[in-house]
This record gives sequence, structure tokens and C-alpha cells, in this order.
Amino acid sequence: MTTLIDREGIAVRDAHDPLCGKRDAFVIPDGVIYLDGNSLGPLPKAALRELKLAAEHEWGEGLIRSWNAAGWFDLPTTLGDRIARLIGAEAGETVCTDTTSTNIFKALHAALNLRPGRSVIIAEGTGFPTDVYMAEGVASARPGVRLKLAGIDAPEIEALLGDDVAAVLVNHVDYRTGVLRDMAALTSRIQAAGAVAVWDLCHSAGTMNVGLNSANADFAVGCTYKYLNGGPGAPAFVFAARRHHGRLKQPLSGWWGHANPFAFEHSFQPGDGIRPMLCGTQAILSMRALAGALEVWDDIDLLEVRQKSLALTDLFIALVEENCGRFGVTLAAPREHAQRGSQVSFRHPHGYAVVQALIERGVIGDFREPDFMRFGFAPLYLRYADVFEAASILHEVLANETWRDARFAKRATVT
Amino acid sequence: MTTLIDREGIAVRDAHDPLCGKRDAFVIPDGVIYLDGNSLGPLPKAALRELKLAAEHEWGEGLIRSWNAAGWFDLPTTLGDRIARLIGAEAGETVCTDTTSTNIFKALHAALNLRPGRSVIIAEGTGFPTDVYMAEGVASARPGVRLKLAGIDAPEIEALLGDDVAAVLVNHVDYRTGVLRDMAALTSRIQAAGAVAVWDLCHSAGTMNVGLNSANADFAVGCTYKYLNGGPGAPAFVFAARRHHGRLKQPLSGWWGHANPFAFEHSFQPGDGIRPMLCGTQAILSMRALAGALEVWDDIDLLEVRQKSLALTDLFIALVEENCGRFGVTLAAPREHAQRGSQVSFRHPHGYAVVQALIERGVIGDFREPDFMRFGFAPLYLRYADVFEAASILHEVLANETWRDARFAKRATVT
Repeated sequence: MTTLIDREGIAVRDAHDPLCGKRDAFVIPDGVIYLDGNSLGPLPKAALRELKLAAEHEWGEGLIRSWNAAGWFDLPTTLGDRIARLIGAEAGETVCTDTTSTNIFKALHAALNLRPGRSVIIAEGTGFPTDVYMAEGVASARPGVRLKLAGIDAPEIEALLGDDVAAVLVNHVDYRTGVLRDMAALTSRIQAAGAVAVWDLCHSAGTMNVGLNSANADFAVGCTYKYLNGGPGAPAFVFAARRHHGRLKQPLSGWWGHANPFAFEHSFQPGDGIRPMLCGTQAILSMRALAGALEVWDDIDLLEVRQKSLALTDLFIALVEENCGRFGVTLAAPREHAQRGSQVSFRHPHGYAVVQALIERGVIGDFREPDFMRFGFAPLYLRYADVFEAASILHEVLANETWRDARFAKRATVT
Repeated sequence: MTTLIDREGIAVRDAHDPLCGKRDAFVIPDGVIYLDGNSLGPLPKAALRELKLAAEHEWGEGLIRSWNAAGWFDLPTTLGDRIARLIGAEAGETVCTDTTSTNIFKALHAALNLRPGRSVIIAEGTGFPTDVYMAEGVASARPGVRLKLAGIDAPEIEALLGDDVAAVLVNHVDYRTGVLRDMAALTSRIQAAGAVAVWDLCHSAGTMNVGLNSANADFAVGCTYKYLNGGPGAPAFVFAARRHHGRLKQPLSGWWGHANPFAFEHSFQPGDGIRPMLCGTQAILSMRALAGALEVWDDIDLLEVRQKSLALTDLFIALVEENCGRFGVTLAAPREHAQRGSQVSFRHPHGYAVVQALIERGVIGDFREPDFMRFGFAPLYLRYADVFEAASILHEVLANETWRDARFAKRATVT
């Protein structure tokens, strides 16, 4: 690869990166350029330390006493409050619990219960599939409730907004294209139509200063295993704006959401604040690993994260377009900063095989149907030199047609 | 404590215990007699080994590739099949996933969907509270569905059975008293009334040869953090009898339950077999610890577990009644083996303080409102000598009235 951008300039950028010290907080295997942190973040050293402490000391030695002594029972709220800072929420508005799918279910039910005269849920037909599946599930079990899909029933969400709409579920960043929505503007339009805005932050939390309260969002959900690096399948989160507290009602009314879970009362009384969004006993070992992972963020300026994210994606787009365009690669991510998340997708007719060939060379990205090569750029551990090297290896794979080898032929992939 | 049962006889019983070697598979802190394995099982050494492997190697080195390479994506079914052997199910009928509360929600919805003309759910008013709370949640979001509680709306489940009943949720072992239900007989009566039987195995799995299929059970749920020793809040399980497969429908229809989760289709199509009971991305670190914990069971004869469980509880009842009855302690567990789970509860007017005084002496049991002192007897790591010592310390606490000390006064407890 010959390029107008030189390696010396790249080295200068890394040397002046205010986040460069954060890479040491992670375990990054030798020979790997990890562009899949948008699917599963790498292992933070603090997560490993906390996990070991939780297993050996808290569980092994503390046994049942650790529910109180080690703060296990409070983890959904204490971790929720730490996540809150990263998504522009106040303390007490977020709990860390269950899965994104389950939290979507709760948030949509809670939204419908806030709008009793309305019967339509809007979701995105091109959004992450489980969002649609969960909305289908909510609609299937509530007589009269209907689901309408932007991108299928109408081109855009705005065209579906009407006085029958109770809730709109929106992906902040599209999982395939990396397109970033304007949260404040769309929330305002949704609310102007009388509906409730539910934001899915899976692909934005940890890459930018998500401003839930400044955008006046109603609900939000998200996972912690992508850019927040909480570990495989780490517990998700759910946010409900404080103005809705006291009226939060959703049917997964388990004992962790009860006003007094240890009184063992025989009828459900919802707890205060955000607590009614909790349900059952949580996977504590996974939560304790997440607690370690969140330490990495304690001294982080999210504006610096966003600036570096845009600089990394700008660099990758420039390098790939300059060198790989003639091999059939086309950009599927927005050029405008205001519309770009922290991932860049390129389309290629043989995208699956190209991604497999890259992985063999240590450049780990992923593939999404039908032809999206998806590369995530996590500002805490990626260097400008990594981006340069990844683009260089992509160029080699395409120029040499390495991807044509039979071992890169298509099989099922896992997110 | 003077007793007709002597220490020498106890030592002989331990020496002849076919399960005695299993204690070495666990981390048991020095000075602790752990009678709370019915709330949180102790740390199996294999769980710690697998957790370390999962974090350092699979996550740290394998990164996203471990979803396939380390079998993460299949853990709900592979662990489900290993649990199946312990609960009398066939392979393919059980998945390990989510929480007991969430799985109750799914099972009750699936049961209602199998009985479309019926509208009543029966649960136990004196059962574990979250069972009732989840049944309330199901009823609240399905118009026309009503909840009736045995112990409140009628003394017994049988009196509530009628041609409007769709589903009956029953605790196999009562969490407070340790009473064991006759699963085959009650399932038969429930089904004779045209309803579907949903069993909660939280307090029986891992203590006996639970026979779901021999009892013709329809659905079952349970946790893995009590007698199965999977770790705090370890993922739960849900069973659906094979005869119901192909008709399983529940509204938590997330992408893990989809027929083809990696095709990213835009409408939900349920997977085969038990898969529709899955929902979202699971907490893999917690599941990997559970995978280690389940290894301990691989060569276990569950009949031996049940025999030892009864022998341990017999011994504890005999010792406490012989020595402590005059201090106001009364048995709240069944004397008949056929009705006894693997825990023994005694009632005492100052039960809370007595339990705290015992904990200070290293005998860890727990307290349940209003006056139940609850002691669990896990046959894999408890010795007859531990039971003797625990009864002896209980005698001392009562005889010396140690429990009257102000530091044992009542505060909130955690399960």
C-alpha cells in the first residue's frame, strides 16, 4: 500500500493521543488488531482482577454473606449509576440487569402503560433483529397492540408517527451501517406526536457522550459487552427518565423489583424509582467482571473518546478509499461526522471471505448479511498505527485476492 | 450437649459414606459448617478453574472467536442437557438461561398458549414470593387472565382446579418448611382437570432424583445457584416436555430463540425443540463457572444423594429435638421422608437472633419470616460430623442464651 498518509505522521498522532495510556488497561493478544470491539470488547485487566476476587474471596470465602458484605445485592443499582455517567443520565435512573432483549420488552411495556389510549409500537425493520423480535413479542401478547416497521411499512419513522403510536424503539447507531441518529431531534418529533422514545444504545454507549437527559429521552436500553468491555454476554442496562418514576409498570415483576424484597410478601408492590425495571436474581460473577471493566472509564472524558473515534474512522475511510476502491469496496458508513457512529462498514460482493482472510492475518472485524464488512473502532485501546496497519492488510488481501482461498468460504458467523 | 448419638458412631457413618470423596471438590472455608447451600452453594474447584479459563484464555485471547471456538453460543443447550440428567429430563428438553423469575414468565405464557380457552393461573400463596409476583405479572398483561392462590383463595391447589384453569405453578419443595410435593400425583390431578403443570425445582434440583418425565411434568424451572453450586445468581433453567415442542410460544421472543439467529431476518420465526424458550445473549462468564460446577455431578448417583440427604436431615432433627426442644424450638419440617426436601426448618420466637448467633460461631444457616430458622443439607460436601457439631453449637447458643446479645438484633437479610 502506498499512501499520501505516512507512517511518521501516524506515529506523531499516537504520541499526542490523550487516551494512549488506556491501552495498557486491556489484554490485547500479540499479533491482533482488534476491530470487533463493537461486538465483544477485549478483556480489561481490572475485570480479571475483580472476577478473581469475586470468585475466590467473595464466593469461596464469604459464601452467602457476600450478598450483603460484598454489595452483590446492590450491583444492579451501583453499576447502573456508573453506566449512567456514560450515557448522560442521572444517578438513580439506570439499572444494570438481564439482557438487552429482556430490557427492550420491559421498556416497551412500560411505555405502552404510560400511553393507555394508544396501540402502536414503531420499530426499525433494518435495526438489530432482536429489537424487532421483542417488539413482536410485546405486541403478540397484548391484544390490540400492533407493530409497524420503519423501512418496511414506510421509509422513515417520521412517516409512521400518528396519534395511535405509543412507543418508538430506535437504534442510536445502526448495527450494520454505523449510521448515528440525532437523538434530540428524533426524540422531540416522537414526543410531539404524543409517543414515548425508547433508545437502543448498544452500538453507541462507550464511544461518545450519549446525552439521554439532554435529549429528553424517555427510556433506553443497551448492552455492556461491546464498547464497555464487560465480557461476553455481560448484563445489560435499562434507563427510565426520572419524570416517569412512580408510574413504571412492566409485567416482568420479579422479586428484585419489589418494594421490600426480603419481607417475602405475597403480592407484588413495585419499588421506588427505577427499581420496577428489575426482575430476578442476577448473574453476579458476570456483574463483578463488568464492575472491573467500568473502572477503566472512571477518569475518561467522553468528548475525547468521541474525537478520537471520529479521527480513527476518518483515517480508515481515507486509507481504504485511497487504496482499495478499485477492488470493489464501497463505503457504507456516513461521511458526515454528525451521522457516524464508531464503526465503519464497507460493502464488497465477497465480503464474507475478505473478512475471514483478514481475521487469519490478525485483523479481526466481522461480517453482516448480505455484504457488509464491519469494523469497529474503540478509542480506548486502538492506536492510529493499528488503523494504518489494518488498512494495509486489507489492501494486500484484496490486491492479492487472498480471499479466494476455499478456506474462507462462507459459513455461519456469530456476533 | 449430651446425646444418645455418639461421636464414634458419627465417624463410622462418615467413613462409610459413598459420597465422602466429593467434599474435596469444593472450597469450604476453615471453621465453617455451611448449612446454607440451599441458598447459595459453595465454590466448586472446577468452577474456579473453568472461570479462569473462560476469562483469561477464551475472552482474553480468543476474543470474539470464542463464541464459536469455545462453544459459548451453545452453552444454553449443552448446559441444559447436563442439567436434564439431574432432573429426569431427556436431552433437548432443557435450556440453561436467564433467571428463574424470567423463566416462570415464559413457562406460564407458554402454558396459557397451550390452553387457549382457559384463563386461570394457580400459584401458591405461601410459595417463594417471586413465583407469585411473576404470575401476577403474566396475569396483569393478558386481559381476562386471573390468578388464584392456594393457601389464600382456598387451602389447597386441588380445591382450585376447575375447567377454567390453564396452568398451575407449584414449588417442588417449599422454601420455608422444606415440604416436598408428590410430583407425579399432583401433576396427574392437574392434568386430569385439563391444566398444565409448571414445577419450580429451585429447592429440589441437586438433592434427589427429580423425575420430571416419569411424573409427566409439562414445564419446569429452577435455579443453579443453590444445590447445583453454580455461583451467585448463576443462570437458571427451563424445561418443556418434548410433547409440547413445536407449539412453544412465549412473548420474550428474542434472537437466541430464533430459527436462524445469524440470518438477521426481520421477523421472528421460533427455533426447533426447546429453543423458543431462549431470548437474549447470555452472561457467559457465569455460565462457564456453572459448567465447572456441573462437572462435580458427572459420576453422581442421585439415589445416593437422596439417601444421604434424608440421613443428614434425620440426624439433625433427632439431635435438635433431643437437646433443644426445651428451649422453645419446634420442628417445621415433615418427619415423613416422602414429604421432606433437603432442608430442615425449626421455628423459634427469636429465630432471627439465634441464626445470627449461629453464624458468628461458623454455623451458617438462614432465617425466613416470620420465625423460621432454615438449615440446608447438601449431601456432596456435608459430613455427618458437621451435622453433629452444628446441633451441638445450636444447643450451646440456646442453653447459654447467646442470642440475646444486642449485636444479633434484627436487620434485613438477604437470601
